[in-house]
Amino acid sequence: MEDRIETSLLLDYYKSLLTDKQNDVMSMYFDENLSLGEIADVNETSRQAIFDLIHRTHKKLLNYEEKLHMKKDFEKKEAIKSQLKVKITNLNIDEDSRLKIMSLIEDI
Amino acid sequence: MEDRIETSLLLDYYKSLLTDKQNDVMSMYFDENLSLGEIADVNETSRQAIFDLIHRTHKKLLNYEEKLHMKKDFEKKEAIKSQLKVKITNLNIDEDSRLKIMSLIEDI
Repeated sequence: MEDRIETSLLLDYYKSLLTDKQNDVMSMYFDENLSLGEIADVNETSRQAIFDLIHRTHKKLLNYEEKLHMKKDFEKKEAIKSQLKVKITNLNIDEDSRLKIMSLIEDI
Repeated sequence: MEDRIETSLLLDYYKSLLTDKQNDVMSMYFDENLSLGEIADVNETSRQAIFDLIHRTHKKLLNYEEKLHMKKDFEKKEAIKSQLKVKITNLNIDEDSRLKIMSLIEDI
Protein backbone atom coordinates (compact mmCIF):
# COMPACT_ATOMS: atom_id res chain seq x y z
CA MET A 1 0.00 0.00 0.00
CA GLU A 2 1.32 3.48 0.82
CA ASP A 3 5.03 4.16 1.25
CA ARG A 4 5.77 3.12 4.81
CA ILE A 5 8.58 5.47 5.77
CA GLU A 6 6.96 8.52 4.19
CA THR A 7 3.66 7.77 5.92
CA SER A 8 5.33 7.17 9.30
CA LEU A 9 7.02 10.57 8.98
CA LEU A 10 3.75 12.31 8.11
CA LEU A 11 2.18 10.67 11.17
CA ASP A 12 4.86 12.29 13.34
CA TYR A 13 3.73 15.72 12.20
CA TYR A 14 -0.02 15.33 12.00
CA LYS A 15 -1.07 12.60 14.45
CA SER A 16 -2.54 15.26 16.76
CA LEU A 17 -5.14 15.99 14.05
CA LEU A 18 -6.27 12.34 13.76
CA THR A 19 -8.76 10.47 15.92
CA ASP A 20 -7.56 7.90 18.47
CA LYS A 21 -8.89 5.11 16.27
CA GLN A 22 -7.05 6.40 13.21
CA ASN A 23 -3.85 6.77 15.20
CA ASP A 24 -4.14 3.28 16.70
CA VAL A 25 -4.65 1.58 13.34
CA MET A 26 -1.98 3.62 11.54
CA SER A 27 0.51 2.86 14.31
CA MET A 28 -0.26 -0.87 14.16
CA TYR A 29 0.20 -0.91 10.40
CA PHE A 30 3.10 1.50 9.84
CA ASP A 31 5.09 1.26 13.08
CA GLU A 32 4.36 -2.24 14.40
CA ASN A 33 4.05 -3.77 10.91
CA LEU A 34 0.96 -5.81 11.76
CA SER A 35 -0.94 -7.19 8.75
CA LEU A 36 -4.39 -5.95 7.75
CA GLY A 37 -5.83 -9.26 8.98
CA GLU A 38 -4.14 -8.96 12.37
CA ILE A 39 -5.33 -5.38 12.82
CA ALA A 40 -8.85 -6.43 11.78
CA ASP A 41 -8.81 -9.16 14.47
CA VAL A 42 -7.66 -6.78 17.20
CA ASN A 43 -10.39 -4.29 16.25
CA GLU A 44 -13.06 -6.94 15.71
CA THR A 45 -13.80 -5.70 12.21
CA SER A 46 -13.11 -6.74 8.62
CA ARG A 47 -9.85 -6.58 6.71
CA GLN A 48 -11.60 -4.35 4.18
CA ALA A 49 -12.68 -1.88 6.87
CA ILE A 50 -9.09 -1.58 8.06
CA PHE A 51 -7.85 -1.21 4.48
CA ASP A 52 -10.34 1.62 3.90
CA LEU A 53 -9.48 3.35 7.16
CA ILE A 54 -5.74 3.28 6.39
CA HIS A 55 -6.34 4.52 2.87
CA ARG A 56 -8.58 7.39 4.01
CA THR A 57 -6.20 8.38 6.79
CA HIS A 58 -3.24 8.31 4.43
CA LYS A 59 -5.07 10.68 2.09
CA LYS A 60 -5.85 12.91 5.06
CA LEU A 61 -2.15 13.04 5.98
CA LEU A 62 -1.18 13.95 2.40
CA ASN A 63 -3.84 16.65 2.44
CA TYR A 64 -2.49 18.15 5.68
CA GLU A 65 1.04 18.14 4.28
CA GLU A 66 -0.14 19.82 1.08
CA LYS A 67 -1.82 22.54 3.12
CA LEU A 68 0.64 23.04 5.98
CA HIS A 69 3.89 21.48 4.60
CA MET A 70 5.33 21.03 8.08
CA LYS A 71 7.43 18.06 6.96
CA LYS A 72 8.79 19.86 3.90
CA ASP A 73 9.60 22.99 5.92
CA PHE A 74 11.33 20.94 8.61
CA GLU A 75 13.46 19.13 6.04
CA LYS A 76 14.42 22.43 4.38
CA LYS A 77 15.36 23.87 7.77
CA GLU A 78 17.52 20.86 8.63
CA ALA A 79 19.32 21.05 5.27
CA ILE A 80 20.21 24.73 5.83
CA LYS A 81 21.29 23.99 9.41
CA SER A 82 23.71 21.40 8.02
CA GLN A 83 25.21 23.92 5.58
CA LEU A 84 25.48 26.43 8.37
CA LYS A 85 27.29 23.96 10.63
CA VAL A 86 29.84 23.24 7.90
CA LYS A 87 30.49 26.98 7.52
CA ILE A 88 30.90 27.43 11.29
CA THR A 89 33.19 24.41 11.51
CA ASN A 90 35.48 25.96 8.89
CA LEU A 91 35.73 29.35 10.59
CA ASN A 92 38.94 30.30 12.34
CA ILE A 93 37.38 31.20 15.72
CA ASP A 94 37.85 30.16 19.35
CA GLU A 95 36.30 26.89 20.47
CA ASP A 96 34.06 28.48 23.05
CA SER A 97 32.36 30.71 20.45
CA ARG A 98 32.06 27.80 18.07
CA LEU A 99 30.37 25.58 20.65
CA LYS A 100 27.91 28.30 21.64
CA ILE A 101 27.02 28.98 18.02
CA MET A 102 26.65 25.27 17.23
CA SER A 103 24.37 24.85 20.22
CA LEU A 104 22.15 27.71 19.05
CA ILE A 105 21.96 26.19 15.56
CA GLU A 106 20.92 22.87 17.08
CA ASP A 107 18.13 24.58 19.03
CA ILE A 108 16.56 26.24 15.98
CA MET B 1 -14.15 39.90 21.00
CA GLU B 2 -10.99 37.87 20.49
CA ASP B 3 -7.56 39.47 20.50
CA ARG B 4 -7.17 40.89 16.99
CA ILE B 5 -3.43 40.66 16.43
CA GLU B 6 -3.12 37.19 17.95
CA THR B 7 -6.02 35.91 15.84
CA SER B 8 -4.66 37.50 12.65
CA LEU B 9 -1.36 35.71 13.26
CA LEU B 10 -3.06 32.37 13.84
CA LEU B 11 -4.95 32.89 10.57
CA ASP B 12 -1.61 33.22 8.76
CA TYR B 13 -0.65 29.73 9.89
CA TYR B 14 -3.92 27.83 9.67
CA LYS B 15 -6.08 29.54 7.03
CA SER B 16 -5.48 26.62 4.68
CA LEU B 17 -7.43 24.41 7.10
CA LEU B 18 -10.49 26.68 7.15
CA THR B 19 -13.36 26.83 4.67
CA ASP B 20 -13.64 29.71 2.17
CA LYS B 21 -16.57 31.12 4.11
CA GLN B 22 -14.66 31.04 7.40
CA ASN B 23 -11.65 32.69 5.77
CA ASP B 24 -13.75 35.40 4.14
CA VAL B 25 -15.52 36.36 7.35
CA MET B 26 -12.38 36.20 9.49
CA SER B 27 -10.52 38.37 6.99
CA MET B 28 -13.32 40.95 6.93
CA TYR B 29 -13.39 41.11 10.71
CA PHE B 30 -9.72 40.83 11.67
CA ASP B 31 -7.90 42.31 8.65
CA GLU B 32 -10.38 44.76 7.15
CA ASN B 33 -11.91 45.69 10.52
CA LEU B 34 -15.49 45.56 9.29
CA SER B 35 -18.15 45.49 12.01
CA LEU B 36 -20.31 42.42 12.67
CA GLY B 37 -23.26 44.31 11.18
CA GLU B 38 -21.36 45.18 8.00
CA ILE B 39 -20.19 41.58 7.55
CA ALA B 40 -23.74 40.35 8.17
CA ASP B 41 -25.01 42.69 5.42
CA VAL B 42 -22.41 41.52 2.91
CA ASN B 43 -23.25 37.88 3.64
CA GLU B 44 -27.01 38.46 3.80
CA THR B 45 -27.25 36.88 7.23
CA SER B 46 -27.70 38.00 10.84
CA ARG B 47 -25.18 39.72 13.07
CA GLN B 48 -25.57 36.79 15.50
CA ALA B 49 -24.70 34.25 12.77
CA ILE B 50 -21.49 36.15 12.00
CA PHE B 51 -20.67 36.45 15.69
CA ASP B 52 -21.10 32.67 16.11
CA LEU B 53 -19.03 31.88 13.02
CA ILE B 54 -16.15 34.10 14.19
CA HIS B 55 -16.30 32.62 17.67
CA ARG B 56 -16.31 29.02 16.40
CA THR B 57 -13.52 29.70 13.92
CA HIS B 58 -11.41 31.40 16.57
CA LYS B 59 -11.77 28.33 18.80
CA LYS B 60 -10.77 26.17 15.84
CA LEU B 61 -7.62 28.25 15.33
CA LEU B 62 -6.70 27.95 19.02
CA ASN B 63 -7.26 24.22 18.80
CA TYR B 64 -4.95 23.89 15.79
CA GLU B 65 -2.26 25.92 17.54
CA GLU B 66 -2.59 23.77 20.66
CA LYS B 67 -2.13 20.63 18.55
CA LEU B 68 0.44 21.77 15.99
CA HIS B 69 1.99 24.88 17.67
CA MET B 70 3.27 26.22 14.35
CA LYS B 71 3.10 29.82 15.58
CA LYS B 72 4.90 29.04 18.83
CA ASP B 73 7.61 27.06 17.03
CA PHE B 74 8.10 29.83 14.48
CA GLU B 75 8.48 32.45 17.20
CA LYS B 76 10.97 30.28 19.07
CA LYS B 77 12.96 29.78 15.85
CA GLU B 78 13.03 33.51 15.13
CA ALA B 79 14.21 34.29 18.66
CA ILE B 80 17.13 31.85 18.35
CA LYS B 81 17.98 33.22 14.89
CA SER B 82 18.25 36.68 16.44
CA GLN B 83 20.65 35.43 19.12
CA LEU B 84 22.66 33.65 16.46
CA LYS B 85 22.93 36.79 14.34
CA VAL B 86 24.24 38.77 17.30
CA LYS B 87 26.91 36.11 17.89
CA ILE B 88 27.92 36.11 14.22
CA THR B 89 28.02 39.93 14.14
CA ASN B 90 30.46 39.91 17.04
CA LEU B 91 32.85 37.36 15.52
CA ASN B 92 36.16 38.53 14.15
CA ILE B 93 35.82 37.02 10.68
CA ASP B 94 36.00 38.27 7.08
CA GLU B 95 32.96 40.04 5.70
CA ASP B 96 32.38 37.53 2.93
CA SER B 97 32.01 34.64 5.39
CA ARG B 98 29.82 36.74 7.63
CA LEU B 99 27.46 37.63 4.80
CA LYS B 100 27.16 34.03 3.63
CA ILE B 101 26.44 32.83 7.16
CA MET B 102 23.89 35.60 7.77
CA SER B 103 22.15 34.72 4.53
CA LEU B 104 21.90 31.05 5.55
CA ILE B 105 20.47 32.04 8.95
CA GLU B 106 17.87 34.19 7.20
CA ASP B 107 16.84 31.25 5.01
CA ILE B 108 16.21 28.87 7.92
